[in-house]
Amino acid sequence: MDGLGDRPVEEFGGKTPLEYANTPNMDKFATLGMNGLLHVISPGVTPGSDTAHLALFGADPYEYYTGRGPFEAAGIGLEVKHGDIAFRTNFATINNQDIIIDRRAGRIKTGTEELANLFQDMEIDGIKIILKPGTEHRAALILRGEGLSDMVSENDPHVEGKEPQEFHPLDDSPEAQKTARVLTTFVMKAKTLLSNAEVNKDRESQGLPPANYLLIRGAGKVPKLPNFEKEYCLETACVAGGGLYKGVGRLLGMHIIEDPRMTGGTTTDLSATFGNALEALKNYDFVFTHVKGTDNFSHDGDPVGKMKFIEKIDKELYRFLPENFKQDLVVMITGDHSTPCSFKDHSADPVPLIICSPDCRVDKVTKFGESYAVEGNLGHLLGKHIMGIALNELRLVHKFGA
Amino acid sequence: MDGLGDRPVEEFGGKTPLEYANTPNMDKFATLGMNGLLHVISPGVTPGSDTAHLALFGADPYEYYTGRGPFEAAGIGLEVKHGDIAFRTNFATINNQDIIIDRRAGRIKTGTEELANLFQDMEIDGIKIILKPGTEHRAALILRGEGLSDMVSENDPHVEGKEPQEFHPLDDSPEAQKTARVLTTFVMKAKTLLSNAEVNKDRESQGLPPANYLLIRGAGKVPKLPNFEKEYCLETACVAGGGLYKGVGRLLGMHIIEDPRMTGGTTTDLSATFGNALEALKNYDFVFTHVKGTDNFSHDGDPVGKMKFIEKIDKELYRFLPENFKQDLVVMITGDHSTPCSFKDHSADPVPLIICSPDCRVDKVTKFGESYAVEGNLGHLLGKHIMGIALNELRLVHKFGA
Repeated sequence: MDGLGDRPVEEFGGKTPLEYANTPNMDKFATLGMNGLLHVISPGVTPGSDTAHLALFGADPYEYYTGRGPFEAAGIGLEVKHGDIAFRTNFATINNQDIIIDRRAGRIKTGTEELANLFQDMEIDGIKIILKPGTEHRAALILRGEGLSDMVSENDPHVEGKEPQEFHPLDDSPEAQKTARVLTTFVMKAKTLLSNAEVNKDRESQGLPPANYLLIRGAGKVPKLPNFEKEYCLETACVAGGGLYKGVGRLLGMHIIEDPRMTGGTTTDLSATFGNALEALKNYDFVFTHVKGTDNFSHDGDPVGKMKFIEKIDKELYRFLPENFKQDLVVMITGDHSTPCSFKDHSADPVPLIICSPDCRVDKVTKFGESYAVEGNLGHLLGKHIMGIALNELRLVHKFGA
Repeated sequence: MDGLGDRPVEEFGGKTPLEYANTPNMDKFATLGMNGLLHVISPGVTPGSDTAHLALFGADPYEYYTGRGPFEAAGIGLEVKHGDIAFRTNFATINNQDIIIDRRAGRIKTGTEELANLFQDMEIDGIKIILKPGTEHRAALILRGEGLSDMVSENDPHVEGKEPQEFHPLDDSPEAQKTARVLTTFVMKAKTLLSNAEVNKDRESQGLPPANYLLIRGAGKVPKLPNFEKEYCLETACVAGGGLYKGVGRLLGMHIIEDPRMTGGTTTDLSATFGNALEALKNYDFVFTHVKGTDNFSHDGDPVGKMKFIEKIDKELYRFLPENFKQDLVVMITGDHSTPCSFKDHSADPVPLIICSPDCRVDKVTKFGESYAVEGNLGHLLGKHIMGIALNELRLVHKFGA
């Protein structure tokens, strides 16, 4: 559950949304399992969603993280390659005075595939341009070729009513200079092509803001991540709606379960998510299941929404209770970081964690929650520890030494 | 509180001095805050006061620590420079047979400024000699110039009735050899100059031991420490009486609050210390407040003295209670290491820690003490983690990733 951890909420009598929520299934896992507090990267370090997931899957983000672009690009299904420079991209609206008037082109719903086709086979300075649309105004951009760098600034001013920024190199290398040059040329060409596109003429005739500009940010060189399946010898499925999480899964070598009912939002179909997870367990050894909505409610500062959403998730977890699941199963329930509703942003507070397996060392904790987990027998853990602990529960231990 | 942590004391019914002390204010912070046990450097590692403070402020002592000299020198106000070789120095008394008869020259009270002036503008082998007196017999020495090393032995035999030791290089480098040579020449010249000084003739006529020799130890190359204020974006004040603590603060780039009422001893004016801390909070984001006396009682093996001193400190802390302090404040209460009265020296036992902020995850601990902290929700922490946790409480988070 993304952004699961929280802080005391006054209207909940000082409990957190998770503690206040009625979660009989999670509580059952807490009762049958081991509990603890997880510092996903390190105590006192506030994770992003991308670095957090790398850490949880044992890929040290200090070693592997280069920026969010590669994960977003992989998440929307782009076949990224080690060395590609990847960016998050918005279709946006710019006016005649070169002022950004809508950073999301009216959250354009259709036509972005057609717009992206305008750039098919485009090359600039020997660099291949690959643009793939995601949901609404979102897209991913890849520059592929020799002599590129991710040390390049963005053109997104992050507010409307301003001109786009110029791309500039962030170090003195010729690679960074070349990358900035290619991006500058590309955005200029794109503006012309987009402005003349049928899709946009139609939009303007309907009074909709045209998707006539590209805002590009989050540069990252596609890292060579460890292959999760090979690393742990587990055939692995990723069940997620949000692009980023699918991207992390794909770059780690997981098999992505696609289902449009999983939207990565607060109105996602949770029974689809957990039904898919259950189904995937037939064919895969390990299933990573991600729900984003908890984090969305947190960013909106809505503890009641978060609490109710946690209750909805809880209802779906009956499928995995030992009494309802035929084979031995290790269940790990946790978050990638805390997002206290009072902060409306990520925090460094640890997240509660359950690891439940048929013959684990059961502790005395009987409820799932930040303050209950303090009493658990897992103590304080780092994100990088949990895969090893899960494998240990499965007796899939790699003995170090003899 | 320096050397705060302790071990069970029989006359306290098995409680530690901190546990036995009546500390209503600390207990209130414990009740309103989060509690844990702090391994300042690492479990099983016994910190010095210098390395401990580096660790607490996030400067890895394994990377930055070169010896105590630089901190003592900075603590008495010497403008040390990266690359200087700094030493702790005693004015001492030597007799005609070259035997040290008093390592502290009768704890000489006055006249050391005049004696130090004898070495003004002295240069040996192109190396500048800078000597600055501290309190009583204490002084700091700096060698400044090219081709020096801190791999050099001391001349202090650490007992009286012996000859001073010879300086010798501790490795094969020409730098270490040069440094030993410069020190040897300097101490010889100093002996002559000091023996003939008016101050010492006066002392001898009064039957006092003359300060006619220099014992030099604790060589350290002045390290380039991370700048605390820049690292954490916090304007920072250091409120301390002891020279070492001021030195650590100064080398980390903190602003030093000077007040002669803060002596760094057991009779220091605690209301001056905490009054200064309160005042400093008006102008600074972060105030490091250090009290040394707890450690002094511990080294003397005096648990009752330590316990009573802790009670005196507790009385001063009312200023910072949420009910008496207008703005939001994060209070961290801990020690730099344990100094069990039964050891009379530092130990590797963890120290209890409180981190209290207005909306932190309150745990069930209601008293401040080594055994109570075990139940806290901070668990076992390393010294290097606490600044990140404090910044998280202040929502001054630097998200790693996106």
